[in-house]
Amino acid sequence: MKPATPDETVEQLRSALGEGVALISDPDITISYSRDHALFAQSALPLCVLLARTTQDVALAVRFANEHRIPVVARGAGSGLSGGANSMDGCIVISLEKMNQIIALDEVNQVARVQAGVLNLDVDKAAQELGLAYLPDPASRSWSTIGGNVATNAGGMCCVKYGVTSHHVRAITVVLASGEIVELGKATKKSVSTLDLLHLFVGSEGTLGIITEVTLGLVVRPKPAATMLATFPSSTEAAAAAIAMMKFRPSMLEIIDQTTLKAVEAWHPLGFEVAGAVLLMQMDENHHQLERALELCAEFSMIDGVSSDDPADAADLLRVRQLAFPALERMGATILDDVAVPISQIAELVRRVEQLGINRGLTIGIFGHAGDGNMHPTIVYEHGDITAAANAEAAFHEIIAIAQELGGTASGEHGIGSIKSAAVANEISPTVVEMQRGIKKLLDPNNIMNPGKKLP
Amino acid sequence: MKPATPDETVEQLRSALGEGVALISDPDITISYSRDHALFAQSALPLCVLLARTTQDVALAVRFANEHRIPVVARGAGSGLSGGANSMDGCIVISLEKMNQIIALDEVNQVARVQAGVLNLDVDKAAQELGLAYLPDPASRSWSTIGGNVATNAGGMCCVKYGVTSHHVRAITVVLASGEIVELGKATKKSVSTLDLLHLFVGSEGTLGIITEVTLGLVVRPKPAATMLATFPSSTEAAAAAIAMMKFRPSMLEIIDQTTLKAVEAWHPLGFEVAGAVLLMQMDENHHQLERALELCAEFSMIDGVSSDDPADAADLLRVRQLAFPALERMGATILDDVAVPISQIAELVRRVEQLGINRGLTIGIFGHAGDGNMHPTIVYEHGDITAAANAEAAFHEIIAIAQELGGTASGEHGIGSIKSAAVANEISPTVVEMQRGIKKLLDPNNIMNPGKKLP
Repeated sequence: MKPATPDETVEQLRSALGEGVALISDPDITISYSRDHALFAQSALPLCVLLARTTQDVALAVRFANEHRIPVVARGAGSGLSGGANSMDGCIVISLEKMNQIIALDEVNQVARVQAGVLNLDVDKAAQELGLAYLPDPASRSWSTIGGNVATNAGGMCCVKYGVTSHHVRAITVVLASGEIVELGKATKKSVSTLDLLHLFVGSEGTLGIITEVTLGLVVRPKPAATMLATFPSSTEAAAAAIAMMKFRPSMLEIIDQTTLKAVEAWHPLGFEVAGAVLLMQMDENHHQLERALELCAEFSMIDGVSSDDPADAADLLRVRQLAFPALERMGATILDDVAVPISQIAELVRRVEQLGINRGLTIGIFGHAGDGNMHPTIVYEHGDITAAANAEAAFHEIIAIAQELGGTASGEHGIGSIKSAAVANEISPTVVEMQRGIKKLLDPNNIMNPGKKLP
Repeated sequence: MKPATPDETVEQLRSALGEGVALISDPDITISYSRDHALFAQSALPLCVLLARTTQDVALAVRFANEHRIPVVARGAGSGLSGGANSMDGCIVISLEKMNQIIALDEVNQVARVQAGVLNLDVDKAAQELGLAYLPDPASRSWSTIGGNVATNAGGMCCVKYGVTSHHVRAITVVLASGEIVELGKATKKSVSTLDLLHLFVGSEGTLGIITEVTLGLVVRPKPAATMLATFPSSTEAAAAAIAMMKFRPSMLEIIDQTTLKAVEAWHPLGFEVAGAVLLMQMDENHHQLERALELCAEFSMIDGVSSDDPADAADLLRVRQLAFPALERMGATILDDVAVPISQIAELVRRVEQLGINRGLTIGIFGHAGDGNMHPTIVYEHGDITAAANAEAAFHEIIAIAQELGGTASGEHGIGSIKSAAVANEISPTVVEMQRGIKKLLDPNNIMNPGKKLP
């Protein structure tokens, strides 16, 4: 029998899905569903894009894909930074963006049940109306989806105090590779009735199944935070001060290096010309210890410090952090890295990445979450310069190796996607590689779920 | 070839393990390693008991067991309440109790690396000397081991604010069924480099591997808690008040029903004769809101309330909670249940369990964690009365069914062990049952790791 043409396959899928489903095969449109924000990660044109409306839509499409051995890539807002949502040649992209309903907000039990395509910030805003909060706060929270957050186990700034996405997920609805729909986890705060299959899917980047609904744990909204900003001669002192700040139970603790500060100053002068590094802290309890925090920073050669427990001042103080990445982006093409090290190794990481930048003749700005060691060295190179791009990519991988040497990990919060899977093998044993492959094979025997991603 | 006798097998294992290993086959001793605290769960005499000193000891024994198809049961302090550590006929029990060293306490990175046999409270005490805390606080924390806590994903009182054991585990060393040793997870606070295999093992009750070392996340020690105790006409009002108390971000929120209070009063009169229920709350922030909390309780028909922000008073106020289970135990044989429901359903759970007690002519005291819906109905019956025991066991399972009907789960924190595995099938789909079996088969193809436990 002659194999079906791509057009015939799309029509077969369309009839499998039934009436009224948005299935797009126009390449002018599908191209815009072919990549996330990891600009240097590979992608190829998908066969088609399904704008799923229901879990059932997803299940029908995945079942069809499994029968026809067609790769499937799930996609939320496409805000990922590791190519995890990038499509491969001839695959079916399943976009969850239209599944954007908050199904239920339960004030008493402090949980929200949402479709995967709901924006993170929309959940938090809805929770806020009840005096509650959805805490995980990736930088993308105003445009990234809960499904993507869960699939990548997204982090953010509040993680220093409140943990990552996985700590706030209670239950999920998943479409398995077979097209079966399962519910994993429980809405209750405690449950040990099964093996923890839920967390196997959290952070699995679409390689084991597609998450279509999520039950999220909410908490009573923390008090508005007090904010402190301190400048130091170098990242070494700032990182040492950061460690000392941990005693105040910060709800945010960020560090910005001199290269990044210079990029900010060149764009929006904020007065950081002489600073070698900036430390930013927020505390949603212990407000009364703001002064004590500044005194303690002074013991680490602080140049200047300012603090306020007026939430209205927070935006001003945090501005330098918000400008960090866009300021570097202004300077050229960028590759944003994401590694995590023990916080005792942050200063050493910065030192070695700076040296790497010098050696390779690259500008590398470093900023990140000083409270949990999750740093984002950002490599800047000339737009359109292929040699520079290769140089930057090599630096990207060297940064991972440095982090791993310091007891760290290839990705703290952005995920592995297609750009780091080889690097991960350096930090896990061959047995762990085999365990992952075994689980992948068990749950996706035909290797249709986001093949080539995440696993080494 | 004639199969080896039990004695020959023990000698073969002894020589596989090498010199100086404590391998016990004297039934007078091994019997004391044959059960945990779930007195009505089945057990049988093991072939032998290994008092492991190192991960290597465990690996050699498991490898031997796998080659000889001998079941292996891991054991910490034997404080479990679901028969999870109960031995089966002819198995090898591997006790981790001698692996009780804190390997490293890292003040800067706020982590502890410990052997599995370290007592929970010993970790917290060591952390306390550095101004840190290991938060998970199962009632058994002064005698249960970290390995057991992780294997069961133990809960406790602080979970209402700080989550369960799984939220505080960063990395583990595991001996797989093959005898291979793997390290899962990362010491860093964030890591998304692999599928989350770590949490697959947390709460797996020894069915997938044996955890021999654990890296635990510590936090800056919370302030000493303020304590509030309020009495109410019935559990209905107390449960409603508990929900209202959540706004104060309690670090403990416990409820005790009238049956339990009567048992306490009959033993140690504390002045709760007229109370229909007691609510206990601790807050390690928001101390200034103690009065407001009592005012709010008054809106739920509070009979009497007392509070103190002096930590010295806490022990007095918490006494009734500590006496709850022993007071019921004094009255006869007991079966302690452990279910979790949405907190909105606590009052209904209490009502239906009370009715069940009336219908079956059983005393059932109910106390538990009102902040997370994890309740411990405790069935009392006549020592040595076989009919009464059967009646109590039937009630035990009916309580699970009630919790499940209310959107809850068969176990909140004690685990499934051998006593609840059938019940779990009522709350998960056949596909999830198959997924669990698939993972079990993948990681333990010869079904030697604690066979018959946890999975339906």
